[in-house]
Amino acid sequence: MKVIEGNVTAAKGFKAGGIHCGVKSPEGGKKDLAMILSQVECTAAATYTRNKTKADPLYVSMAHLEKGKAWGIICNSGNANACAPNGKEHAIRMCQAAAAATGHKGEDFAVASTGVIGQELNIQAILSGIPSLVESLSVQGGDDAASAIMTTDLKEKSIAVEMELGGKTVRLGGIAKGSGMIHPNMGTMLCFLTTDAAISHELLQKALREAVRVTFNRVSVDGDTSTNDMCCILANGLGENQPILSENEDYRRFMEGLAFVCRTLARAIAADGEGASRLVTCIAQNARDEEEGETVAKAVIASSLVKAAMFGADANWGRVLCAAGYSGADCHPENISVAFSSAAGRIPVCEKGKGLVFDEDLAKKILLEKEVTIEVDLNEGKTDVEAWGCDLSYEYVRINGDYRS
Amino acid sequence: MKVIEGNVTAAKGFKAGGIHCGVKSPEGGKKDLAMILSQVECTAAATYTRNKTKADPLYVSMAHLEKGKAWGIICNSGNANACAPNGKEHAIRMCQAAAAATGHKGEDFAVASTGVIGQELNIQAILSGIPSLVESLSVQGGDDAASAIMTTDLKEKSIAVEMELGGKTVRLGGIAKGSGMIHPNMGTMLCFLTTDAAISHELLQKALREAVRVTFNRVSVDGDTSTNDMCCILANGLGENQPILSENEDYRRFMEGLAFVCRTLARAIAADGEGASRLVTCIAQNARDEEEGETVAKAVIASSLVKAAMFGADANWGRVLCAAGYSGADCHPENISVAFSSAAGRIPVCEKGKGLVFDEDLAKKILLEKEVTIEVDLNEGKTDVEAWGCDLSYEYVRINGDYRS
Repeated sequence: MKVIEGNVTAAKGFKAGGIHCGVKSPEGGKKDLAMILSQVECTAAATYTRNKTKADPLYVSMAHLEKGKAWGIICNSGNANACAPNGKEHAIRMCQAAAAATGHKGEDFAVASTGVIGQELNIQAILSGIPSLVESLSVQGGDDAASAIMTTDLKEKSIAVEMELGGKTVRLGGIAKGSGMIHPNMGTMLCFLTTDAAISHELLQKALREAVRVTFNRVSVDGDTSTNDMCCILANGLGENQPILSENEDYRRFMEGLAFVCRTLARAIAADGEGASRLVTCIAQNARDEEEGETVAKAVIASSLVKAAMFGADANWGRVLCAAGYSGADCHPENISVAFSSAAGRIPVCEKGKGLVFDEDLAKKILLEKEVTIEVDLNEGKTDVEAWGCDLSYEYVRINGDYRS
Repeated sequence: MKVIEGNVTAAKGFKAGGIHCGVKSPEGGKKDLAMILSQVECTAAATYTRNKTKADPLYVSMAHLEKGKAWGIICNSGNANACAPNGKEHAIRMCQAAAAATGHKGEDFAVASTGVIGQELNIQAILSGIPSLVESLSVQGGDDAASAIMTTDLKEKSIAVEMELGGKTVRLGGIAKGSGMIHPNMGTMLCFLTTDAAISHELLQKALREAVRVTFNRVSVDGDTSTNDMCCILANGLGENQPILSENEDYRRFMEGLAFVCRTLARAIAADGEGASRLVTCIAQNARDEEEGETVAKAVIASSLVKAAMFGADANWGRVLCAAGYSGADCHPENISVAFSSAAGRIPVCEKGKGLVFDEDLAKKILLEKEVTIEVDLNEGKTDVEAWGCDLSYEYVRINGDYRS
């Protein structure tokens, strides 16, 4: 497997595009409508938020993808179409308009929305925009699509890889958006993936669920699980590999590529969390099992106090132990050791529940890096689990104290 | 029952005091050592944090209170004596020194600490301070004690009530501290209560557990459950009521007074949360049962996004619905209605899952008050449950980005 240039159009047979249609304010002129389209029918799989308050587009996508097939994805930003008047009707009309402009059926599209909750979607703007969006679709259009699904994100998030499956080179790429209301549970923020690998629907869904579980579901920006989280993958088979129909060596390679792509996008989402000044990784080391490790690592990166300490580059390991203690994991604080590390070095600060004397200046230097790691050694077993988050800054409060207006 | 002046010294036979001994920095000279003492032996009960990372003073208090009796409470602020070298030894020595200066045994005292985690307690400062602390004890000293247990709290928190039990007037009062790392679970922040009621240990413990469950355990400032939460009550029987030995009418009256005192202190803790500019109450209305209501109400007040919206006085009800949706409660978003209220009025903003057109100026006015209420009508049953929190402000980030130094 190797990383290559590109994103959702890296795999054969996919085009994408993104335009400003008017859901976001005209002044900014920021892109707000994206489409990804395959030139042949795809096997499709998806995961969705577990929030009971689900946005209507998710229910529509679930219905459309039930058959395991799709041709494309249509997505707007600027309005989540969640708890909004005529939400279901609008989501269906987005698919129908996408279908009409591309010669398909409404059920051939997955649909997603992201943005403010509770306000009626400007469906006219979307319907008017779709024909020119379709006209703009190209293999160079992946960046525009990545940009058009952003809300408070500061950076586009995309990645692509290439792998050999049975002598054939196949590609897999994706785009994602995150920023706020990020604490996915079984679904994710918005993430759209495409591949030209040939794979059965059952195994594609299985691979996606597994990749999401160990990547997007281990990210937290603010502990709030969105109403609109969705991760969708389209596989069109144009890579001409022997179709993957069992959990063979090709499946494992595909899984490896998929997990790498999801992990890269998950980390990018954490690093670009609302107001974030740094990416914070917590590695729960030597956990009894994956569940214990995940519980601890997620509690640490989700702790407001740990996050505020990371903002201040303060080696406040007591808050780390505190978070492990209330996480619900059956861990033993008297066994736990903590260290901070980054490109600037590594510093142990707590050994088996008790503080160590350490060089505060070095700790500060380590924690001032753009990417820092909190190592929490549980000393219970042999499993390591990572989770990703970011610091809690003034900027997070500013953004969210005044988001609707 | 009526509210009276005073606090932990309102009930007969209690003295209290608070001094600066040197755990906090000498420059500020802020009080950091408190004692409450009864002139006779008390029946004692307590609840403790459920965090697995418990501070040593809690283990010492548990051991000392196992017999259901105590004479007093010794508490320092400025250092939590949690995950700290020689923690248990220091906690025991605090009790022994308190005992030596008052003519009791170490086991006659409950001990608590609050402040930074992981640093060794300046035990010498405490041991040196205890004699003058004991000398200062008085029935006027409750305010000094309330002040001496504060960390980042801006206000002292105290309350007292008087009630009639079988023709006798008994009193109950308390002091508390909160501010950050506030998300109690079965224990609480620090809260010390005294009463001259006569009541069995079993019923005192039962009453305390029940009162804590519906008050302190429904407060969240930042979702972080502390290592040091503790709520302790001393009952010395000097009120000369017929001792409460069964769940009779007197027990119910006592329970009512206790719940009122705890609720008042819980709300004071929420209102004075780190960086808080307003007290936010969430009432989950018409829940199927208490558990569902509590789950929803706590999720709403703990949501970073709801809290940031409250800081911005933004009527962002979508975030309220979102929090209810991920709370884990088996509620139905399509049934939920939301309204905001305060002294400035009441405004419904969402009816059965869909947004209402509302007057944004009025909503702003309502949300700019010092105390605001989020009403979440679940339309499922007949139970109402309240939870208390505060907004998320720049100040919270400032305080916690740089707490240790």
